[in-house]
Amino acid sequence: MMGSFVREAVVEFGDCDEAGIVFYPKYFYWFDCAFQGLLRRCGLSQRRLRTRFGAVTPIVDAGARFRSPASYDDVLAVTTSIELWEERRFRLRYEVRCGDRLVAEGHEVRAWAVLKSDGGIEGGAIPAEFRALLES
Amino acid sequence: MMGSFVREAVVEFGDCDEAGIVFYPKYFYWFDCAFQGLLRRCGLSQRRLRTRFGAVTPIVDAGARFRSPASYDDVLAVTTSIELWEERRFRLRYEVRCGDRLVAEGHEVRAWAVLKSDGGIEGGAIPAEFRALLES
Amino acid sequence: MMGSFVREAVVEFGDCDEAGIVFYPKYFYWFDCAFQGLLRRCGLSQRRLRTRFGAVTPIVDAGARFRSPASYDDVLAVTTSIELWEERRFRLRYEVRCGDRLVAEGHEVRAWAVLKSDGGIEGGAIPAEFRALLES
Amino acid sequence: MMGSFVREAVVEFGDCDEAGIVFYPKYFYWFDCAFQGLLRRCGLSQRRLRTRFGAVTPIVDAGARFRSPASYDDVLAVTTSIELWEERRFRLRYEVRCGDRLVAEGHEVRAWAVLKSDGGIEGGAIPAEFRALLES
Repeated sequence: MMGSFVREAVVEFGDCDEAGIVFYPKYFYWFDCAFQGLLRRCGLSQRRLRTRFGAVTPIVDAGARFRSPASYDDVLAVTTSIELWEERRFRLRYEVRCGDRLVAEGHEVRAWAVLKSDGGIEGGAIPAEFRALLES
Repeated sequence: MMGSFVREAVVEFGDCDEAGIVFYPKYFYWFDCAFQGLLRRCGLSQRRLRTRFGAVTPIVDAGARFRSPASYDDVLAVTTSIELWEERRFRLRYEVRCGDRLVAEGHEVRAWAVLKSDGGIEGGAIPAEFRALLES
Repeated sequence: MMGSFVREAVVEFGDCDEAGIVFYPKYFYWFDCAFQGLLRRCGLSQRRLRTRFGAVTPIVDAGARFRSPASYDDVLAVTTSIELWEERRFRLRYEVRCGDRLVAEGHEVRAWAVLKSDGGIEGGAIPAEFRALLES
Repeated sequence: MMGSFVREAVVEFGDCDEAGIVFYPKYFYWFDCAFQGLLRRCGLSQRRLRTRFGAVTPIVDAGARFRSPASYDDVLAVTTSIELWEERRFRLRYEVRCGDRLVAEGHEVRAWAVLKSDGGIEGGAIPAEFRALLES
């Protein structure tokens, strides 16, 4: 599927809480890792975004629905796809599975922000080249 | 306000990413901490929920909208309130401010789950006593 | 080498601090993950230690020397070996490399602790069977 | 005591592992937070080190001995002191207590490193002014 990308995550001992299941903020860490993995697959990274496009992709919105628990030693597959392109934002969709079992679904909305000469950032239109790379 | 509770969080060096702003999964850690703080204020904790009610409060849904960045050494105020009580779930609302500035808004939906004798859990109705404690 | 075990870790965006290098507590997370990986390779896990030996391996001492920085997108190899067996403790040695470059060296000392019927733990002699499994 | 500084840390639900005790890498996070707190008390921060001294304090060595477990809801006091000043390095000592009970002892060795014009860093002598500020 266009822009779809699968990355594996092993649930480590330190990822689990007292109840023996993943402490939920970790899922958002995995979402971010999956996004970085998608960039990497396209020959990009947060750093190359800066040098090539003079831009960063700040997070605007993130969320997840937890369908079933994951536990120490589970091997998870995190599938990333780009659900929506807007002029200045894009929406990523994440699906976390343990084998056939759906563990969590989530999303991130990221903005396109251009680095200004004073070190600040300001929103801008997503370049066609970036979109093409991520859809390739 | 009913069930409203404020807790402070200092943005530490290790909470920030390369861009010098909070790495976003940390906000969900703070949301969870704020919920634990709310329980504590009511004389409860995850452990006392187990011993007193034989129950846990698994996370079902979580989300956040990021309004402005927070950075190393910022002192944040996380305000927690209970937005909605359903028969078997409740919804927490979080607001993160740095002084007057709104940094993030978020929510958690938590279920009420009763511990079964086989070690598993199953959804159940929220006891009036728990709701009364959290609203006190 | 006896008991030597290599595991890969990718440095993620969220693992780095404002200086763009790994925030050092993460190395200890990787050490713990490497130990869990070693257990797994031997058909064990923290949970199987409990069911098979009625024991856990609490950390007693941990340390690291940082030789050169690792940065976002670096692929690290964490080599684990068991350096010393004592009657009630064992010492793990970790070496973290990025290609040929030495990034960090570290250790963990873990005790053998038997679960008591009251839920507590007490130190005990390491079973020959456990040692044989880890050396296999 | 000269350079001694106490900071509180509450053990949060998400800081604990499946065994219900603090997952040990978190202690190093608290050590780093305590060092940042010490800087802050002296009117400094990682950022002000850069602007005022053109320097950073990279970690060279870190270690801890774990004396007794800490658990969810425990309130810890982390005491920081500077144990040793060398020409180019200084050694911090940390003590973590829960009430009277010693939980952990640890250390960090940090180097003084000057920012070069090419963005790199190189070791340098610790300025008397920095030492005086930390000892004040």
